[in-house]
Amino acid sequence: MATAKKWVYFFGNKKAEGRAEQKNLLGGKGSNLHEMTRLGIPVPAGFTITTEACIYYTNNKKQYPQGMWKQVEDALAKLEKAMGASFGDPNNPLLVSVRSGARVSMPGMMDTVLNLGLNETSLKGLIAKTQNERFAYDSYRRFIQMFSDVVMGIEKPVFERIIEAKKHEKKVKLDTELTAQDLKDLVELFKRVFKEKTGKDFPQEPKEQLRYAINAVFGSWDNPRAVTYRRLNKIPGDWGTAVNVQAMAYGNMGENSGTGVAFTRDPGTGEKRFFGEYLINAQGEDVVAGVRTPMPIAELKRQMPKIYAELEGIYKRLEKHYRDMQDIEFTIQEGKLYMLQCRVGKRTAAAAVKIAVDLTKEKLISKEEAVLRVSPGQLDQLLHPRVDPTAHPQKIAKGLPASPGAAVGKVVFTAAEAEEMAGKGERVVLVRLETSPEDIGGMHAAQGILTARGGMTSHAAVVARGMGKPCVAGSNDITVYEEHGYFFAKDLKIQRGEYITLDGSTGEVLLGEAKLIQPELSGDFATLMTWADKCRKIGVRANADTPTDAKVTRQFGGEGIGLCRTEHMFFEGDRIEAVREMILAADLDGRRRALAKLLPMQKEDFKGILGIMGNLPVTIRTLDPPLHEFLPKTEEDMRDVSQKTGVPIDRIKAKVDSMHEFNPMLGFRGCRLGLEYPEITEMQAQAIFEAACELRKEGKNPFPEVMIPLVGTLAEFQLQKDIVERVAKETMKKYGVKVKYMIGTMIEIPRACIVAGEIASQAEFFSFGTNDLTQTVLALSRDDAGKFLPGYVDRKIYKEDPFVSIDQEGVGEMMKMGVERGRKVRKDLELGICGEHGGDPASVIFCHQIGLDYVSCSPYRIPVAKLAAAHANLKGKVKVKEMGEK
Amino acid sequence: MATAKKWVYFFGNKKAEGRAEQKNLLGGKGSNLHEMTRLGIPVPAGFTITTEACIYYTNNKKQYPQGMWKQVEDALAKLEKAMGASFGDPNNPLLVSVRSGARVSMPGMMDTVLNLGLNETSLKGLIAKTQNERFAYDSYRRFIQMFSDVVMGIEKPVFERIIEAKKHEKKVKLDTELTAQDLKDLVELFKRVFKEKTGKDFPQEPKEQLRYAINAVFGSWDNPRAVTYRRLNKIPGDWGTAVNVQAMAYGNMGENSGTGVAFTRDPGTGEKRFFGEYLINAQGEDVVAGVRTPMPIAELKRQMPKIYAELEGIYKRLEKHYRDMQDIEFTIQEGKLYMLQCRVGKRTAAAAVKIAVDLTKEKLISKEEAVLRVSPGQLDQLLHPRVDPTAHPQKIAKGLPASPGAAVGKVVFTAAEAEEMAGKGERVVLVRLETSPEDIGGMHAAQGILTARGGMTSHAAVVARGMGKPCVAGSNDITVYEEHGYFFAKDLKIQRGEYITLDGSTGEVLLGEAKLIQPELSGDFATLMTWADKCRKIGVRANADTPTDAKVTRQFGGEGIGLCRTEHMFFEGDRIEAVREMILAADLDGRRRALAKLLPMQKEDFKGILGIMGNLPVTIRTLDPPLHEFLPKTEEDMRDVSQKTGVPIDRIKAKVDSMHEFNPMLGFRGCRLGLEYPEITEMQAQAIFEAACELRKEGKNPFPEVMIPLVGTLAEFQLQKDIVERVAKETMKKYGVKVKYMIGTMIEIPRACIVAGEIASQAEFFSFGTNDLTQTVLALSRDDAGKFLPGYVDRKIYKEDPFVSIDQEGVGEMMKMGVERGRKVRKDLELGICGEHGGDPASVIFCHQIGLDYVSCSPYRIPVAKLAAAHANLKGKVKVKEMGEK
Repeated sequence: MATAKKWVYFFGNKKAEGRAEQKNLLGGKGSNLHEMTRLGIPVPAGFTITTEACIYYTNNKKQYPQGMWKQVEDALAKLEKAMGASFGDPNNPLLVSVRSGARVSMPGMMDTVLNLGLNETSLKGLIAKTQNERFAYDSYRRFIQMFSDVVMGIEKPVFERIIEAKKHEKKVKLDTELTAQDLKDLVELFKRVFKEKTGKDFPQEPKEQLRYAINAVFGSWDNPRAVTYRRLNKIPGDWGTAVNVQAMAYGNMGENSGTGVAFTRDPGTGEKRFFGEYLINAQGEDVVAGVRTPMPIAELKRQMPKIYAELEGIYKRLEKHYRDMQDIEFTIQEGKLYMLQCRVGKRTAAAAVKIAVDLTKEKLISKEEAVLRVSPGQLDQLLHPRVDPTAHPQKIAKGLPASPGAAVGKVVFTAAEAEEMAGKGERVVLVRLETSPEDIGGMHAAQGILTARGGMTSHAAVVARGMGKPCVAGSNDITVYEEHGYFFAKDLKIQRGEYITLDGSTGEVLLGEAKLIQPELSGDFATLMTWADKCRKIGVRANADTPTDAKVTRQFGGEGIGLCRTEHMFFEGDRIEAVREMILAADLDGRRRALAKLLPMQKEDFKGILGIMGNLPVTIRTLDPPLHEFLPKTEEDMRDVSQKTGVPIDRIKAKVDSMHEFNPMLGFRGCRLGLEYPEITEMQAQAIFEAACELRKEGKNPFPEVMIPLVGTLAEFQLQKDIVERVAKETMKKYGVKVKYMIGTMIEIPRACIVAGEIASQAEFFSFGTNDLTQTVLALSRDDAGKFLPGYVDRKIYKEDPFVSIDQEGVGEMMKMGVERGRKVRKDLELGICGEHGGDPASVIFCHQIGLDYVSCSPYRIPVAKLAAAHANLKGKVKVKEMGEK
Repeated sequence: MATAKKWVYFFGNKKAEGRAEQKNLLGGKGSNLHEMTRLGIPVPAGFTITTEACIYYTNNKKQYPQGMWKQVEDALAKLEKAMGASFGDPNNPLLVSVRSGARVSMPGMMDTVLNLGLNETSLKGLIAKTQNERFAYDSYRRFIQMFSDVVMGIEKPVFERIIEAKKHEKKVKLDTELTAQDLKDLVELFKRVFKEKTGKDFPQEPKEQLRYAINAVFGSWDNPRAVTYRRLNKIPGDWGTAVNVQAMAYGNMGENSGTGVAFTRDPGTGEKRFFGEYLINAQGEDVVAGVRTPMPIAELKRQMPKIYAELEGIYKRLEKHYRDMQDIEFTIQEGKLYMLQCRVGKRTAAAAVKIAVDLTKEKLISKEEAVLRVSPGQLDQLLHPRVDPTAHPQKIAKGLPASPGAAVGKVVFTAAEAEEMAGKGERVVLVRLETSPEDIGGMHAAQGILTARGGMTSHAAVVARGMGKPCVAGSNDITVYEEHGYFFAKDLKIQRGEYITLDGSTGEVLLGEAKLIQPELSGDFATLMTWADKCRKIGVRANADTPTDAKVTRQFGGEGIGLCRTEHMFFEGDRIEAVREMILAADLDGRRRALAKLLPMQKEDFKGILGIMGNLPVTIRTLDPPLHEFLPKTEEDMRDVSQKTGVPIDRIKAKVDSMHEFNPMLGFRGCRLGLEYPEITEMQAQAIFEAACELRKEGKNPFPEVMIPLVGTLAEFQLQKDIVERVAKETMKKYGVKVKYMIGTMIEIPRACIVAGEIASQAEFFSFGTNDLTQTVLALSRDDAGKFLPGYVDRKIYKEDPFVSIDQEGVGEMMKMGVERGRKVRKDLELGICGEHGGDPASVIFCHQIGLDYVSCSPYRIPVAKLAAAHANLKGKVKVKEMGEK
């Protein structure tokens, strides 16, 4: 056999077997301990057991890999030698900390056991060595406490209650006021608890303690909390965690000892200042656990100026070395400083942006690296008003996060009320069972929308996203009693006029007026976005249905409109009446009359949108939804429509009945409408090209791209294209101008991907409609999946919610097929995506990889998409020093 | 340039430039005229213009290809020489017939113009030559009449009215009683009509007449009737038609002349007897048009024994030469026999079977050829009772042909009524708005089911097909007034108790008791099926849900069950109550209690089915449909369920509401149910394996294949398989026997095809669920497509209804992907299809081609599928003489 595999890496005395780059093998914490040791920074000696050992253990029924334990024993011996102390020694015992450390920091995994190695014998050694009985007993009780909790799973409060009881008995307030004898008593009590809870005596053999601790770290890799965290953060299950075993440094050896955590810059704002806190005479977990209130780090400068100066030198050196803001942990043992950890510090989105820009200005990183330093997913926070998390408002209900951002307002239950109160300058939140087209005015007037029913593609959700208004949809927690003027959030009754706050990014409903943080899109943010723009290849357009949306698109730097859903215009104002008239028309003439009413309205919209977008492309989709979506649903609404249109209510009812569909998603919609009623496509084409020609005559350069939806065969596309092309030519001839335009199709059903070659022979562009493509490829109704999809994601049946991030293995394969087959026939085929995935970072990266020309997303997601696009293009190209964060 | 392309082929004087094999080039009629000429059979000389010329003409704005007209003129000269007569000759004029002739006989295309070449001059020549003024004028008036109708599009009745007027004026009854002068008058009147209708004089130049006629034949290839016919019969539009120009033979030259059509065997029954009819002193179109009543061919033997003997010799020779039953046309001109056409004769399914078997017995064809002689599509006729077409019943409404076969019975409107009357021995037809699970008993009792609402997969349709009962579903023509005891079929009121007849194969509803023809499955049919079985490679199973279905499956020779839908059992009797109890259960315990009630019932079913099927495989699908399908729909039903289950009605309503789905097809169904409620899968597995083990203990060899539906990821399959496997092992252990079984999956969503490799790593078989695969690949709801799908097929957007015949370009591609990826990972993966396409001949052939192991279809379609499977395997293998039919 070849040399035995190396499972254990040693560090100490300014030498280390590992280095920062070995994060995958040694974990984030471990590799940085090795690196700091190499840099000559004071780090207690120790060793790291590799992540590979953990994976072996996980996959092999909790067996260590061959040779690992031997290597641990060897390293232990080396450590004993380095520290001049030995495990369990009655005179000079070696005590160690045991810490987990995966590639990325992962809450939920076993964290830390301190003072391991203590037992009845070594306790005496510790007393002898330190001449500090109180310290020794304090260390022992801490060890038993942590070991019991972290390694054996005995709940913390059990021990805390014993300490509280002791303090009460002794009439003291602080742990530090307990005497050596008190602590000795605690040790006895703790051991008794241990015996009770585990049926075993507290293990006395240090190596046995170590083995237990290693097993606990390894085992914690697969505990439910860790698994959940990994799922949420897309961390593969086969990374494993390393184990760091390190000689103890004591922050609890008196007033010249202490411990602290700090960030090299402000993690909340990104401001360049040393930011942290410390505790005198304490061990690390005291700071984290908030047992005592720590002091701000600035105080240390006053209290221990030499130590502070040394710390300052180290943190600046680390930031320069790692070229990023660091999160550090240190311990001061009797006036000597030890670094216990350094890692790239977590930060808010705002801080991430500022730090990235500042580091670039400080010439520590390049602009490309700065772009890569900000996670696109995080960016969304900055683009909407958000609830100030420090305000801790009361959560009263939860629903679907249907449209991001936060909204505060008084509860109203009808659109009319919303408009009326908003007219008086009041902020309102519209609360409804579900919304319908009649509510558009009220939705506009409201700050946000809350519904009890409906999914992520319900009317409320779709319209709200289009308007950029926060929306929480389909909340099962609420019951709306509109007629009584209140709603229940679980058991809490909220009256009309009471304030609530919606968090459309999380789906939370909060009681009262929460404090909001407004988005800030200039300054560093703008600078970073300029850099991102230069880094990316793939274009970013927005889904925008109205001139207002188009304006937002331009504000956010959209490079065109990738999806303009003409039908959304149909819901507004009295247009819905003309639309209904069209649907209810008994014959072609009747339809034509109603369409003639719609023509000028559509034309005005298109003129507005095309005008705002200048010479940028505007992809306009012809009518798509099932027509019954436009029809009234309740008896009352039908009566209303009957009065307005003069159509007898019986005919309306009969029509509504006859148009009912079992599966409207797979029904009479998309180009199927235009094929059955070519006059609709004709009218829409006329509106588009009259608008464009008029703008052209005004000297502008509009660029419409007409998109036919739900195409599955070449014939469908061809028949619709013929109409659009004829109308385009006729209209341009009539106006005597030429307008640049394209005619293409949405690729949103599997068959379109299969026959993409045929379709590309006639279509100038494809836009992947990944919402519907996901629904069809997965046979999964977005509106109905709520019942089981969360469980599916939990059980890893899908890696992620396929409506949030493209199912690359399934839907993505079909997209690839569409791209390949389409481009084979037409080399310059323009390719885009207009499903809501266009704003999801992972999906944007996928789109970049399969060679799309652009993504299109909600206007408010444009910066997210741009940044993701830059990441996609930079990754693998820019040589970036390994960061502590993924 | 090379030699000019040959557009025109001459035949005459026992020599011919073409032959029978050149059907594609010369058309069916043309190639057979050439062939008969070669055989020395008396055929008037002539020439054929090729189908390629027609296609050129169609594609090139009605221009002849270069050189064609010159070749026509040359052939004409040759014909003049052969006949010793010339075009427009005042003494001995050449007259010709012009007939279309495509590869296959195609009604709707221009048919025949006779006597072309007649004008004022040649008329005189004809008189001079024949010394028969009356004959000459009769020929002339016929020519003008046909030319006007067929070439110029002037409606026939115009001329017929003129003839009638003349006969009335002359007080005669028969055309033959009109004198030469009368006919001369008619000619003048006809010419005047021609002038009035076309604005032009009747063309006098024979070559101009010919050009007109050729153009009319070419043009008729694309007339709407022909296009429709081609669509219905799957004939490509680029085949074109040939034009046959042939010297006239006259059947109207007196009592020693005549014309007739005949079949060499009885086309209705297949009986071996000369079968046809003739008219003395008439031209061919008189027989076809039914102007006079023709005489049976046997009469000719008496009337013209020499001619009859010659004809007998010819027909026997032709049948032997072509080795198939022939359809012939002949003319007798003054005692001389001419053959004008021979082609393979059309026949009923029954005749096709008998003739194929007889010809084999006569050693004219092989068994393989016999199998190929019967069209699988046609066979379905023989498998169900059918309405006797000779009875001409009154059609009163039309709906979807939801389940084939014919049913006669008295109208009833409720299941209870149906059961009650059937109990008294009455035949009833159940007429309902739509059916629901409560109607099962009534559906069983009824002869057939008629519904006003619902598609091809509505409850009525699915259950009826399962029961093999005729069903006409979703008839928009009917309005049901159950409470009043009548329904309207359009404006006709049908009372309870009146007889109606349903034709589930066509979707027609007929008034009264139509005469039915019962299927005959023994004799020649059985013989042919035995031969077919030997010819095919691919297996044929049936979709069978009950022991009754299983019996039918065995009767029809099914080689297993390819789909046993366990949920169909759930609808029967009081099981639905247990199912509802399960759905309404508040928790797992409640569900388990309800499932425990279902277990013995399911077990009994499985035992029944597995028992009947012996050692043949039985593919059992675990629960598939959305659970809300089992819940009551009306307030009344809910109250009923509430009483039976003790669940408060409010909870039932709330449950029904909460389970509502926008797109149930894409919702909470299939394996998604089993993943959320593993206890259901568990119970079903237990029922299957307990049944199988009990049979095994009885010494039988049951072979269940457990099929997980709606799988889209490996994880879904794996999680369900784990349950089934565990239960299988536990049960076999409990019973102490081993049962042969497999666990596989239905491939019915696009993602399953994409990740088929992964799934095959765990699945032992795939069964393509092409119903749902079609719905998802095409984003087409089968229940809703009725509104636009017929239009789609009309406009050739789909070549065929994709729910009837597999959309090979789209769905078929996904299937191929599934097959390839699956077999790559598991070589012996068993592959089948269980969508309703399994009974469609074209789809069976496709399945054979992509390498499936079996198809599964309705038990009643087994013979169709078997025959199609044999065709698939024989085609391209067996050298078959070109047939006259596709």
